This record gives sequence, structure tokens and C-alpha cells, in this order.
Amino acid sequence: MPDRSAAPRASVAQLVEAARAGRPRAVARLISLVEDGAPELREVAAALAPHTGGARVVGLTGAPGVGKSTTTSALVGALRSRGERVGVLAVDPSSPFTGGAILGDRVRMQEHALDEGVFIRSMSSRGELGGLAAATPQAVRILDAAGCDTVLVETVGVGQAEVAIASLADTTVVLTAPGMGDAIQAVKAGVLEIADVFVVNKADRDGADAAARDLRGMLALARREPYEWRPPVLRCVASTGDGLDELVESLDKHRAHLAEHGELARRRAARAAAEVRAIATGQLSRRLDELSPAASATALAERVVAGELDPYAAADTLVHTLTGR
Amino acid sequence: MPDRSAAPRASVAQLVEAARAGRPRAVARLISLVEDGAPELREVAAALAPHTGGARVVGLTGAPGVGKSTTTSALVGALRSRGERVGVLAVDPSSPFTGGAILGDRVRMQEHALDEGVFIRSMSSRGELGGLAAATPQAVRILDAAGCDTVLVETVGVGQAEVAIASLADTTVVLTAPGMGDAIQAVKAGVLEIADVFVVNKADRDGADAAARDLRGMLALARREPYEWRPPVLRCVASTGDGLDELVESLDKHRAHLAEHGELARRRAARAAAEVRAIATGQLSRRLDELSPAASATALAERVVAGELDPYAAADTLVHTLTGR
Repeated sequence: MPDRSAAPRASVAQLVEAARAGRPRAVARLISLVEDGAPELREVAAALAPHTGGARVVGLTGAPGVGKSTTTSALVGALRSRGERVGVLAVDPSSPFTGGAILGDRVRMQEHALDEGVFIRSMSSRGELGGLAAATPQAVRILDAAGCDTVLVETVGVGQAEVAIASLADTTVVLTAPGMGDAIQAVKAGVLEIADVFVVNKADRDGADAAARDLRGMLALARREPYEWRPPVLRCVASTGDGLDELVESLDKHRAHLAEHGELARRRAARAAAEVRAIATGQLSRRLDELSPAASATALAERVVAGELDPYAAADTLVHTLTGR
Repeated sequence: MPDRSAAPRASVAQLVEAARAGRPRAVARLISLVEDGAPELREVAAALAPHTGGARVVGLTGAPGVGKSTTTSALVGALRSRGERVGVLAVDPSSPFTGGAILGDRVRMQEHALDEGVFIRSMSSRGELGGLAAATPQAVRILDAAGCDTVLVETVGVGQAEVAIASLADTTVVLTAPGMGDAIQAVKAGVLEIADVFVVNKADRDGADAAARDLRGMLALARREPYEWRPPVLRCVASTGDGLDELVESLDKHRAHLAEHGELARRRAARAAAEVRAIATGQLSRRLDELSPAASATALAERVVAGELDPYAAADTLVHTLTGR
């Protein structure tokens, strides 16, 4: 990651211009601004707005240990070999407190570190619940504006946070691997509903057949209209590249399917609406924090603890103070 | 779970009265009302308010497979044997879409199913992000009002959701087990900061010593003032009851420590404030959804997709519409 303090400060307009020209340091600085929730963030967003929408966004998710980083890295290689510019955001929503997320096997990505056609960035939650959900779409926009053909967003698949982040993607790839517990456990975090492509990674191991079969069995139970996309279940060995061509092919097919059925525009509109709502909710939440001490949640909570007020009545008071209604 | 439709509808006041008398069906109905976000919810909250604050709330969290259900069940047994009335909420925040969470080993709790001094309830997320975070504290209040001496809240430890739910507790127990990956992975979800008691469960297995050592090593790195609580690292075999006495003893000690240092009141005030904020944020979020189509996030999102508006400017518009500022 570039040193953020080495060069004199550039203006937001200069940074956006440099990022659009594909300069990695400018891209990195812009992402830092949005990740930090810096004051310049609004200016960044405004400057980016006319230059986005070109990139395909692919989400990769799965439980720890399924080989997300290895698969992402292999995908980067495959996309680079056909000349694409690729952005990677490795998002770890699971560490709300420590600020420094322990991102698994970043070392796997090193092989692409010197490739000028690849931008790689790790993002972790910096304390604020929902902060990552707001920052990640902005980071995608930056990579998009920087001319990436594909942006890969890799998240640990463990709960609601990454489901929210996966909803960023045009296409969501859900990874599993043999020996990760049964397939139902592996997909319990609601990912069945968000998956466009399933990958059984480490498919050279015992249990790969069973895992693929279980997934296909579950998918067969889901009701789908004839025109609806049916998520394929692929087998890969990302570490050797086996099955990668099929994965790339499935991504292309899904993208074509989305475009053909008007679904791409629908997904992107829904994504933008969710993004706007998340930012607005964050702003409202901050306004709650900025209420005078006497009108604050803390003051009301004292009355709740004393049994004088129930939490819903307290919340009504808070909302009324904020909105006048 | 009792059949909710078998008897004629009781009023909220009657239900609260019956719950306070310890009648399980009334308790179950009230929890259903808050879980469903029923209109009666506010009335329930208001009726409960004067009757809460008596219960000790203990959170248990840990990754899938560490033996949370077995440990919870063993704890129920230990607390029952000294005459406590015990409530159990098994919360699964990891399934935002399916509505029906796959709650691991509920069968472990069956031994307490006929015990009138034990209330057991599973709660799952019913779609709304944050819905569980709002409903769980209410369910705790119901069990509290129903005369539970201890309420155990068991959650899958995988992300921000359960960290939020763990913040419900007076005392949070974080479980791990040998063979769940290294201890650092096991506690990566920010749980190091929320743990008051660590339990290495399945301590009869290989690797228990190493897991306990790793945890103690990490704890030794944390800066703590001399008067601060130092989380013990216990070893248990919940399935045989080994180590359970020490766990109960640690819970009692922690509770005494909290009371002694004024921390119990502080935690409960912070908990109530978070609860009020969560409800208020949910209300504000619903009001965003209720804006007229022309002023809605969806309408603004169309302009974002078109590159005419950036998402922050769109969010400003939304917030202004709602608050007049």
C-alpha cells in the first residue's frame, strides 16, 4: 500500500483525475478517504458520479478457509490474461472493534502486486457499525472510475454484513469446500438466496462430490421461473487453476443473462437505492448522537433503566425531537 | 413451542400478568409479539417497564461447533440445581433471508423442556436487518419480568450482529474449542473485547492446552487497569459437566465485580441507550421507506445510476425531506 503522506496533498479533483488515468496511488488515496469517512468524501463522490457504471462487479463470499483469497487471485490472473483491468476489494466485516482486521491469506495476492493493471485493497470495519457497508460501494465506484473492467469484492461469508456487501455485486459467487461441514451449514448464512454461481473449491479433496450434490439438491428445491437464472455448481481447484476457465465463463454467462433480461439495470438501481438509504440512515443516526444531552438517548435510557419509560416510548421521543413528528 | 392460536386472545395486560406469574404460554406469546414486531409491541413494552431489572443477563457466544448449546444446557442445569429460575434465548442472527434459522443442536435443550423453572426460546432474524437486535432486548425484558433470576442469551459468534446482541449481557461468555482453528481466528470477530469469561470447551480433546495458552497470551497483551476485571480462561467439558462449577463461580464473581465497581449500572444504562437508539433508527428507516415515490430513495437512486447525482447528495435530499433540515 502506498505511503499516504509522502507527496504533497493533491486536491480531490486532481486525485480523481489521476485515478481516472489509472494511477494506483491516487486510487489508494481516494479509497482511504472514503474508508476514513473523511470530510472530502462528499467531494470525491460528486467528482466520481459522472464516471462510473462501466465496471462489472463480482462478489466472492464464503466461510473462512474455503479459499476465497486463492480463488480471487486465480480469477485476477484469468481476467488479466484476456487483458482486463481488475480491481480487488478484500472486505472483512467481522472485526468491528479492533480496526485492523486480520485478513486471511493476503500473501496469495502478492503475485499481482506489481501488475499495473490490478488494484488490490483490503478494507476492514473501523468501528462504526455499517461504516463498511457505506464505504465499500464508494470504493467500488473509485475502482470503476479508474477504468477497471471487473471489480472483485471478496468478503468473509458469516452474517448479515457480507450479505449486504454481496448485494453490491452484479454477480455473486459463493464458495464452499469439502470438509467445511455439510453444505447446508456452509450456506446457512442466507447465501443460498444471493448466490449466482456456486463454487466447490478444493475439489480434489474427499467430499467434493457430496458437497456439489448437496448444493445441487438444495438448488433443485428452489422454485424458479423458466426464464430465471439457475446458479451453476462448479468445481475448482483454485490453487492449480483447475476449473477457473469454467468460472470465468459462468461469470460472463451470468452477466449476459442479466443484461438480456433487464436485470442488470434493476440490480444496479436497487443497489444505488440501498446505498442512498444506508448513507441517509447513517446521517440520521449521527444526528441522534448530536442531540443535546438532555434530549439524548443516554438521558432517556436512564428513565428506561429506572422503569419510568419503556424503550419504544423513549425512541418515539427521540424521533420526534429529530423530525418534529 | 405452544400453539399460539389454541386459546382465545388475551389482552396484553392479561398476558403480562400471566407472564409475571410465570406462566410459560403467556411468556411465549409475548415473545412472539415482539419477535413479529406486532402492533401490540409498544403496549407490551409499556406494561413490562416497571417489572424489569431483576434478572442477571449472561451472553454466550462462539463459532459454530464450539458447543454453545451443550454449554448453555449444562449451565441451565447448574443454575437450576441451586434453585434459580432460568430463561434461555437462542438467537441466530445469521439467517437474514430464510426466516427459519437453522438452530444447531436444539435437541440438547430437551432435557429442560418439561422443567417449569426454565423458559427456552429460539429467535431468528425475520428478514429485517436489525430486527433481531431490536426484538432480543424485549424478549430479555419479558423473561426478566417473568421472574427469571438468570437469562442466558446464546448467539452464533460470527460478526457484528452478535456483538450487538452480546452487548445485551451483564456478563459475556466467549466459547472456543480445540480444533476450531487457532485461537486468534476463533476470536477474530471482535469478541476479545466483549468477553468477560473465556471457555475452552471440549477441553478433553487435543489442543485444549494450546488454545487456553493462546487466549491467555492474547489477554496478557491487553492493557488493563489494576481494578479492571481480568477475564479468566476456563476449561470445560460441557457434555460431562466438567468445569461447570468453575464457570458458574466465574459468572458470580464477575457479577459481584460489576456491582462493586458501579459497572453494572453503567452497562445497563449503555444497553438501554443502545436499545432506544436501535428502535429510533428503525423508526427513522421505516419513515424513509414511507416517503412518497417521487421523494423516495428509489427515485433518487435512478439519478445516481444515471450519474446525475452522487449517493451522498441523494442521501442529503432524503434526510432533508424527513427532518426539514
